[in-house]
Amino acid sequence: MADEFSFAVNASDGGARTGVIATPRGEIRTPAFMPVGTAGTVKAMLPEHVRATGADIVLGNTYHLMLRPTAERVAALGGLHKFMNWPRPILTDSGGFQVMSLSKLRKLTEDGVSFQSHIDGSKHMLTPERSIEIQGLLGADIQMQLDECPAIPIEHEAARESMRLSARWALRSKNAFEKLAKPGQALFGIVQGANFEDLRRESLERLMEIDFPGYSVGGLAVGEGREEMFRVLEFTTPHMPIEKPRYLMGVGKPADIVGAVARGIDMFDCVAPTRSGRHGQAWTGAGAINIKNAKFADDPEPLDPASDCPASRDYSKAYLHHLFRAGEYLGPMLLSWHNLQYYQTLMAGLRAAISAGRLAAFIAGFKAATGEETL
Amino acid sequence: MADEFSFAVNASDGGARTGVIATPRGEIRTPAFMPVGTAGTVKAMLPEHVRATGADIVLGNTYHLMLRPTAERVAALGGLHKFMNWPRPILTDSGGFQVMSLSKLRKLTEDGVSFQSHIDGSKHMLTPERSIEIQGLLGADIQMQLDECPAIPIEHEAARESMRLSARWALRSKNAFEKLAKPGQALFGIVQGANFEDLRRESLERLMEIDFPGYSVGGLAVGEGREEMFRVLEFTTPHMPIEKPRYLMGVGKPADIVGAVARGIDMFDCVAPTRSGRHGQAWTGAGAINIKNAKFADDPEPLDPASDCPASRDYSKAYLHHLFRAGEYLGPMLLSWHNLQYYQTLMAGLRAAISAGRLAAFIAGFKAATGEETL
Repeated sequence: MADEFSFAVNASDGGARTGVIATPRGEIRTPAFMPVGTAGTVKAMLPEHVRATGADIVLGNTYHLMLRPTAERVAALGGLHKFMNWPRPILTDSGGFQVMSLSKLRKLTEDGVSFQSHIDGSKHMLTPERSIEIQGLLGADIQMQLDECPAIPIEHEAARESMRLSARWALRSKNAFEKLAKPGQALFGIVQGANFEDLRRESLERLMEIDFPGYSVGGLAVGEGREEMFRVLEFTTPHMPIEKPRYLMGVGKPADIVGAVARGIDMFDCVAPTRSGRHGQAWTGAGAINIKNAKFADDPEPLDPASDCPASRDYSKAYLHHLFRAGEYLGPMLLSWHNLQYYQTLMAGLRAAISAGRLAAFIAGFKAATGEETL
Repeated sequence: MADEFSFAVNASDGGARTGVIATPRGEIRTPAFMPVGTAGTVKAMLPEHVRATGADIVLGNTYHLMLRPTAERVAALGGLHKFMNWPRPILTDSGGFQVMSLSKLRKLTEDGVSFQSHIDGSKHMLTPERSIEIQGLLGADIQMQLDECPAIPIEHEAARESMRLSARWALRSKNAFEKLAKPGQALFGIVQGANFEDLRRESLERLMEIDFPGYSVGGLAVGEGREEMFRVLEFTTPHMPIEKPRYLMGVGKPADIVGAVARGIDMFDCVAPTRSGRHGQAWTGAGAINIKNAKFADDPEPLDPASDCPASRDYSKAYLHHLFRAGEYLGPMLLSWHNLQYYQTLMAGLRAAISAGRLAAFIAGFKAATGEETL
């Protein structure tokens, strides 16, 4: 195991790269997909099965964990890795995004954001320093600066002021992190600036001046659409340091990931595979299907007979259909598992294609098989 | 694998026995606990984990499966074993008990029982012959005669008429079974007669005249209480054929099982471990606890650190508490698994104790540790 956080690019193909992030808790093969363990659990999944799909790292949500069971309680119980029985790397977000999307009566100031819990109405304050303190209590290997994440569309001036606030918070986050961090932990800065090229450049320059071991692209996948998201990446990633991992937050569907990898992104997280799985949607080599559809009631074929994943291989579509119709736990369990396997198999395919210099062919095959446009 | 259904008692200790039921799909070590897979799934469990707990056989519910996905559909898909990815023995009930407890507008006649589905109001008729047909379509290794299962208390005359109806249905079930059964499948008769000694004796005599490879004790665990249930067993099991397995239907809590094993029962089924698990109750060596209780919020100990079961060993009570408070799937998943492991470990302990002729000491230890009365 590495003593320090590091990143090495092993191969690239056009703008895409493949490499390894080394941490004291294990290596993360990039491009990497991080399953989301919102409240200390990747929903409906056993951690050993998350690992079996090929996941090297999972994500925890600071907002959820600070409210319940609280960061202090997790710390007293030995940290988030022990708490959720996941010994490998964990990335935590700053909590800011979910404060803005989930909490009540929130108020944003220069200092931070005050809000009321969506669970019990209790009052809380999240500042850059408090977010870092919480992420440290959780013991996250990769931590995120607090930022503000405005929706798109937004006026240029408002986007600029928001981005500059995020940049000031980036510095405060870094200062707090340097006081609290344990060896091998890393803090990432977050590039903001909505869909304005000049603001994304300014944001990145401000962050690079502070200097982070990794940079995220934030403020995307907020309703702007795939084409616009890719346009922003195209004028952002080429300026990001080549030797640092690049993380596109909250993205995405398989076609989003394929397109973003081609545009130089190394890390992803998204609730899509598990959330969709809980609602009966399964990704397959031929695209997404809804297993609740009546046409699957008599389908004897598994989702992927050639897979090593039990969820994909050992149960017929007819059985999965039945489980969802009957409201059985096992339906969401199996489809979450299958979808996470689909995602990790996709990431492994992307890594192998980049290594072999055949990413274009891989993407062409993905488009042809799924009918998805990666633009 | 055995070609035929057989039962061998290997050791006994007082009224208790331990042995093996052999079937073409595998052996069933007795005393056996059968997890309930109501709608073709042991709720919130993967079948490989059901097996890992030590289960040799699971139960399927004819009532649920005939309504959804239907027995004909399951048969077209290759039978219930393949459908639910459980290659080992399956026992199905007749459907009668759940028709009486779950369906609407039911009407009982000599021929059988007509009812409306609780799912969609569709009309159905369950006769002894139809029940056997359904169980055959499902491919159950052990099938049950259709019976009527009255509540206790009941008047003697009503109990006698009901029992005699069940006895007539037993003969019709046997005749239907003999036409449809595959090699190695077995049909059990069900002793009725409420809590009347003379009626239980008469029921048993009528069934033994028909001759079954196994006999169930039905009509208990219907609200009569543990003491009364044991009293009925005490005047029933001593007259049951020593060379045939004895199955106490729908029982029960751990103390019920321990007491019934001491009174000569070989097989059990109950939703208690999985249903309780879904609601936050966990059985432990020291009795049952409710993991949702606030006192577990900071408890770093797992439910059973010495267990081989991941659910019992790898997660703190504090984490399980958190999962239930947060409404996460993983809470019911882990507690169902833990409770099934608890039950199977209890059964293994009972088998070993009977083999060693130390059942009394085992029961004394169980009582002392759990505070449960097995009477």
